[in-house]
Amino acid sequence: MVGTNHRFVFAFSEGDKDGRELLGGKGAGLAEMTNLGLPVPPGFTVSTEACRHYLAHGELPPELAAEIAAHLARLETERGKRLGAAEDPLLVSVRSGAKFSMPGMMETVLDIGLNDDSVVGLAEATGRERFAWDSYRRLIQMFGSTVLGIDAARFGAALEDAERANGAAGDLDLDTAALRGVVKAYKGIVRDATGRDFPQDPREQLDMAVQAVFGSWNTERARVYRRQERIPHDLGTAVNVMAMVYGNLGPDSGTGVAFTRDPATGAPGVYGDYLSEAQGEDVVAGIRTPIPLQDLERFDPVSFAELRRIMALLEDHYRDLCDVEFTIERGKLWMLQTRIGKRTAAAAFRMAVQFLDDGLIDVEEALSRVTGEQLAQLMFPQFALHHGGKAIARGVPASPGAAVGVAVFDSEAAARTEAKVILVRRETSPDDLPGIIAAEGVLTSRGGKTSHAAVVARGMGKTCVVGAEGLEIDTEGRQFTAPGGLVVREGDTISIDGTTGSVYPGTIEVVPSPVVEHFESPLAAEKHRSDPVVRAVARMMVYADERRRLGVHANADTPADAERARRFGAEGIGLCRTEHMFLGERRRHVEELILAETASEQDKVLAELLPMQLGDFAGLFAAMDGLPVTIRLIDPPLHEFLPDLTELSVKAALAEARGEVDEGDIRLLRAVRRLHEQNPMLGLRGVRLGLVVPGLVAMQVRAIAEAAVARVRAGGDPRPEIMVPLIGGAEEFELMREEIERVLLDVAEVSGVEVRTRIGTMIELPRAALTAGRIAEHAEFFSFGTNDLTQTTWGFSRDDVEGSFFPAYLEKGVLAVSPFESLDEEGVGRLVGIAVEEGRAARKDLLIGVCGEHGGDPSSVHFFDRIGLDYVSCSAFRVPIARLEAGRAAVLAELESTSR
Amino acid sequence: MVGTNHRFVFAFSEGDKDGRELLGGKGAGLAEMTNLGLPVPPGFTVSTEACRHYLAHGELPPELAAEIAAHLARLETERGKRLGAAEDPLLVSVRSGAKFSMPGMMETVLDIGLNDDSVVGLAEATGRERFAWDSYRRLIQMFGSTVLGIDAARFGAALEDAERANGAAGDLDLDTAALRGVVKAYKGIVRDATGRDFPQDPREQLDMAVQAVFGSWNTERARVYRRQERIPHDLGTAVNVMAMVYGNLGPDSGTGVAFTRDPATGAPGVYGDYLSEAQGEDVVAGIRTPIPLQDLERFDPVSFAELRRIMALLEDHYRDLCDVEFTIERGKLWMLQTRIGKRTAAAAFRMAVQFLDDGLIDVEEALSRVTGEQLAQLMFPQFALHHGGKAIARGVPASPGAAVGVAVFDSEAAARTEAKVILVRRETSPDDLPGIIAAEGVLTSRGGKTSHAAVVARGMGKTCVVGAEGLEIDTEGRQFTAPGGLVVREGDTISIDGTTGSVYPGTIEVVPSPVVEHFESPLAAEKHRSDPVVRAVARMMVYADERRRLGVHANADTPADAERARRFGAEGIGLCRTEHMFLGERRRHVEELILAETASEQDKVLAELLPMQLGDFAGLFAAMDGLPVTIRLIDPPLHEFLPDLTELSVKAALAEARGEVDEGDIRLLRAVRRLHEQNPMLGLRGVRLGLVVPGLVAMQVRAIAEAAVARVRAGGDPRPEIMVPLIGGAEEFELMREEIERVLLDVAEVSGVEVRTRIGTMIELPRAALTAGRIAEHAEFFSFGTNDLTQTTWGFSRDDVEGSFFPAYLEKGVLAVSPFESLDEEGVGRLVGIAVEEGRAARKDLLIGVCGEHGGDPSSVHFFDRIGLDYVSCSAFRVPIARLEAGRAAVLAELESTSR
Repeated sequence: MVGTNHRFVFAFSEGDKDGRELLGGKGAGLAEMTNLGLPVPPGFTVSTEACRHYLAHGELPPELAAEIAAHLARLETERGKRLGAAEDPLLVSVRSGAKFSMPGMMETVLDIGLNDDSVVGLAEATGRERFAWDSYRRLIQMFGSTVLGIDAARFGAALEDAERANGAAGDLDLDTAALRGVVKAYKGIVRDATGRDFPQDPREQLDMAVQAVFGSWNTERARVYRRQERIPHDLGTAVNVMAMVYGNLGPDSGTGVAFTRDPATGAPGVYGDYLSEAQGEDVVAGIRTPIPLQDLERFDPVSFAELRRIMALLEDHYRDLCDVEFTIERGKLWMLQTRIGKRTAAAAFRMAVQFLDDGLIDVEEALSRVTGEQLAQLMFPQFALHHGGKAIARGVPASPGAAVGVAVFDSEAAARTEAKVILVRRETSPDDLPGIIAAEGVLTSRGGKTSHAAVVARGMGKTCVVGAEGLEIDTEGRQFTAPGGLVVREGDTISIDGTTGSVYPGTIEVVPSPVVEHFESPLAAEKHRSDPVVRAVARMMVYADERRRLGVHANADTPADAERARRFGAEGIGLCRTEHMFLGERRRHVEELILAETASEQDKVLAELLPMQLGDFAGLFAAMDGLPVTIRLIDPPLHEFLPDLTELSVKAALAEARGEVDEGDIRLLRAVRRLHEQNPMLGLRGVRLGLVVPGLVAMQVRAIAEAAVARVRAGGDPRPEIMVPLIGGAEEFELMREEIERVLLDVAEVSGVEVRTRIGTMIELPRAALTAGRIAEHAEFFSFGTNDLTQTTWGFSRDDVEGSFFPAYLEKGVLAVSPFESLDEEGVGRLVGIAVEEGRAARKDLLIGVCGEHGGDPSSVHFFDRIGLDYVSCSAFRVPIARLEAGRAAVLAELESTSR
Repeated sequence: MVGTNHRFVFAFSEGDKDGRELLGGKGAGLAEMTNLGLPVPPGFTVSTEACRHYLAHGELPPELAAEIAAHLARLETERGKRLGAAEDPLLVSVRSGAKFSMPGMMETVLDIGLNDDSVVGLAEATGRERFAWDSYRRLIQMFGSTVLGIDAARFGAALEDAERANGAAGDLDLDTAALRGVVKAYKGIVRDATGRDFPQDPREQLDMAVQAVFGSWNTERARVYRRQERIPHDLGTAVNVMAMVYGNLGPDSGTGVAFTRDPATGAPGVYGDYLSEAQGEDVVAGIRTPIPLQDLERFDPVSFAELRRIMALLEDHYRDLCDVEFTIERGKLWMLQTRIGKRTAAAAFRMAVQFLDDGLIDVEEALSRVTGEQLAQLMFPQFALHHGGKAIARGVPASPGAAVGVAVFDSEAAARTEAKVILVRRETSPDDLPGIIAAEGVLTSRGGKTSHAAVVARGMGKTCVVGAEGLEIDTEGRQFTAPGGLVVREGDTISIDGTTGSVYPGTIEVVPSPVVEHFESPLAAEKHRSDPVVRAVARMMVYADERRRLGVHANADTPADAERARRFGAEGIGLCRTEHMFLGERRRHVEELILAETASEQDKVLAELLPMQLGDFAGLFAAMDGLPVTIRLIDPPLHEFLPDLTELSVKAALAEARGEVDEGDIRLLRAVRRLHEQNPMLGLRGVRLGLVVPGLVAMQVRAIAEAAVARVRAGGDPRPEIMVPLIGGAEEFELMREEIERVLLDVAEVSGVEVRTRIGTMIELPRAALTAGRIAEHAEFFSFGTNDLTQTTWGFSRDDVEGSFFPAYLEKGVLAVSPFESLDEEGVGRLVGIAVEEGRAARKDLLIGVCGEHGGDPSSVHFFDRIGLDYVSCSAFRVPIARLEAGRAAVLAELESTSR
């Protein structure tokens, strides 16, 4: 750890891996490797504190120049060279390195120190004149565009001119003389654009580069990214200055990237790519095809062995997958960077148990290394392994899953086509909503993870690939052309992979997730017995369950859903939406209820509905015997059970024009009009319906109570909980509770069987949260309906906003993530916190859960754990994810509290 | 003040007027009069504490019986009679008396102490046998129905039987013998219904009556009323036991009610009604027409003088209008009750200044005695004084004002009729909304202040009379019949008075409010120079303005509105809704903006709108020169400027059926469909529009800035404030502020004129309130949009809920008052409080106001004063009301803090 903040520059040997705050991620990694005695080219880091000073005052700290000079002098002494000297010059690279990496920052300037004199010295020292002039050319180009802000196209044009003049096919064909000409042209561009010459003073080059890195902290793109990621604008970036080593000094030189294990599968062994006679970004840029790292052993066994040794050391040291960048300069290995490596979901689980079994980490740390999001990815259907399909394009994986269908190019075709379809658009707009709804998946050629298509598809759980930029989509011609030239016409089948972003022609076999098959039936899924990923997931689930404090319930409306949820580990039903029981053919009864003109007509319909509801609840109690079943009284506005006003109006108007008037339709239209609301979300629904439609709640409660009695008589253990939706305050709950208790008492008296039935409420309006103390005097449990609570707290109608302005809001960073995906802790979460605190203050044993979709969202689960909820409830599919995250939340909270 | 709580019964001489909590209002008044030495029949009060004990334990406190016995003994000694004795018995009345009077409570049982023996003694002692038996009959009837809970209809039927058998036209025609028969029949009813005889023991009668009063605290009606009025259920009621005096013992006896001044006009002098040879409730029940109190002087000058003396003493003592009930028994005056008298709005103002000028009260107390609600009543147009119209019916005044129009009986007729209409319905439902919108006023024969008609009409500011029960409304026959037999047919003109509830046939002249004429122009309104009410109002306004802490701004969108508001005392515009500027013929431009398919088309439309907006703002700055003008950027969803989806769909479908397709309509329909939202209240509007529709905000800001520059150049003093609507968090505001500042800077640079322009935001979403601290880092002012904040906090769409379930909610006491009328302090108010506290913590000089309709609501103004807002803003009409209430709020807060 760096001991003092009273200076701004630190040699690599002075820091360590915990210095990310001050040195940035890259600087901390270089410091750590240096301290481990690994071959890191010497250098130093200018701290984030210097950047903060620069951002605050518009100039570098006055003492910085001297500090840099001192470190540079040490570096020169160590390398035995002087920066930009005419003979055998020291060159350095300048790289940004913030605590979090982010787009829009100035990344790298290589070869600093070259000028009209040192270029000659470099040529002499290396014996490679073309290399020296090409390096000089690159420096001016890189420096000019990134440090001096000159339009990069001007350098590109000059280079093309030179190629044309020399009859060269590309810059590699330019000889030394031609490159000298390019340098001259470039210097002209710099003079023309900036009014001064390209700086010949190496130290000036260095200072300008450092300052440019600091300045790039505030590019528009970086600012937007930070807003999106909620990274504070005042962190600042560090700058790493490192002596150049060259991977392009002959066949015994080269550069590569490597991972300590396979980041795709988690399998042990060193993985990576190597490119001989190459430098810096060449591997990543992909100008030549690299060779597999293993092949290095053949022609440089010494360096290869050294690299393996270093990789093993790093993995042991960091106790995690590492990736590195390295360069071999004339047979000497140099480490340029290391960091904890990115990995796929499968690799994450597999490596967590490997490290655990190797004794490098404990269970708590293993849990901290896998996420619910990764588990979710493993639970989607996938394309079969080794399916042999060849991707014709690749986009941004925006919503996971594997979808196969015929390509269609607009909503109308999507609706018209009976087969499964993939909607293909350049980008989508609200007009495409019907098409997205009808499609298995969505593919676009534009936009990123926050585009309309991405946001809407994620919201609906549809597979989605966006921004597949190589695709030329011809909507009018109803076809698209892939980069390779393949043309896909409307009606042709394609397959898209929402986890990788790949697009395939034809049908790729989709296989169910082995992880899901394991959850569905660990014993029956014999075939996955030896699947290391399934085994790893299973073990992590056990660890998570042992450690979690939160219960995990499921949202389920049918016995089949409930049984599935139980297999997935649900410890009860946290939300049964009874309105789903009024759909299908029962819709007719609700219509009759609404159209009934007398109380006796209404009673008749309710009497017809009673035995159906009774059957519904009986099935749920059987499936969840011994576990709580939380039943929410009917919630949605009545008109949801009736036809759409506009459709019905058109139908009636057309019938009238034809002189065919249907009395029934007219009556229906009148009812629809009467119940029509401007904003049904804020209208007559939930407890409001219960309080103004006589008999409705009594019917539901009677069905619950009688089903429970029947189950008890059959020897079962039903545990009903009755939940009142959409209350705004204690008064509504008090009245509702009176009515519920009246019916429960009546059923208990008549049957002689008393079933303990909790009565509680949703907290899904800001007012309910704000008055939770008074509500808890009457309610035995709370369940946060965070979907509705988010809608009212933000004033967002989810149906309307996700497809309209959310993409722009995510793009501009107004929202970091849709508040419907992850709970907005600052706003909605504050209300939840108020309700938990004041509810518990009023009733110590108040049971508190959440049944909005956030109950299955990883980051939200951590929040719910933190504020002390009793359980989360989510869809069956999300139950394992919630279990895992609940375990992780408990572990991470523990780690955090002990580290304090 | 009563010194101890360790007993439950207090003689009238032991309490005083401040003992309302323990003795109830009636008991405190009786105690006060007793202590003043006034002739009050002796008696005692059983305290509310005894009631609370009874409610908590289901039985009277054990020590109560002995306490009552002791007080009864004192009473017997004082009167020289024994309760229910066979000779010259003492009789007592038992009356409930809670701190607040409420419906549904058992009120009064008279003549307790009569039984088969004492009835004879009473006859002998008074020499009036019929009187004695009629009293006994009444006791059994009153006691049977209220104390024993026997259906009152059974006593009524027995009485009718007796009348029939005796050929009597009514009970007054029954002679002593017949009454003896009735008593016998009544006793039979009691035995039959309760299984035991009517209690002959006088003390048992008394105890049962006391217990029955306590029990009546929890009748359904009382509970609902307390829920509606937010009166705690655990206050309990007191019971007053008083020796009976008889106003019906001959021509030198009688009973009356009196006011110390005219409660209708506030004019000095004693007002009241007197009925000789009458008792108890007879005056109120109206069985005979009473005489004006003044006439008493003629035939009982001594009692009259004594009464006047007592009234003057009471008024001096209470320093307010008092009303009293009294009885004269054989020439001796007895005071039975006193309380602060109810009064009209006009009387309240007039009396406040009278008492002030008489030196009885100070300015602060004068202010505490008039209310904004009363001022509002004085500001509605009124029917001309002495208009000579004769009311044909009277209902509940539900929404003030005077309306004249032809009677119509349904919405279709209301829409069809070109003349002004009054909608007449038995009761209204959501189907009647179009009719209510089209009408000047609404008249119903059913329902109370919380009925659908009442709630909706109040919400719309329409005159409304409900529950005019005498009207027989024949909707199908399109006519109604008034109690007197007059038939009003559809098309006949009627006049309704929403302040008094009166209904008149024909046209009554409506005159503008003299108070409003005074505000409009105090100098020009010469004609009201000597109007004591106008003068009183004017003086009270001066006092209020001197004392208030809150500024009062107006909501105004046009120069005319602004000028009017300024005349009404507005100190600025707190809300200019710019969307109102896009209606009318400018709607076309907005339509073009929405339909524009290219950025340049949009720019063209915006360029057309710019000069119009510039003109709008120029007019406002001129009207409000030197005062702040807060301009809210466009707020409503764009589709509000387009035709209705259903209407347009029907039109297009019909056109298509006819084979006539209009391309423009199709394009329009497509746009309407694209912009259609399920819940527009929660959709793309406010700042969201500003962030996603390019150029819109810039155009508005430019218009504001350029109009301000022009005004400065013309020598004016414009004070624009720009307000961003519907933000949910700091990020939106930050982005918007950047764009606003860019335009302001641009205008300042081009013009060379810098106009100080505050930039602030509405706080109208729960999330904005919950994150106000961060928002205040960027915003210079907050203005609470309490309408929208109420909608989202409660999840109420005002347009939908006021007419659907609010009446039921008000009826059941779920809501005490519509939260759109008076701010819901518990929920919405808590959010306001959070935002004020955290906003000020982040920015000390944050300016905070409110511009929702609550800004002009009396009780809400007190809340806003209490939590320290800088100003309220409301419609011009409400400005004087807000000024008055702001003054009162400051005064009452002061009084409260000094009384602590």
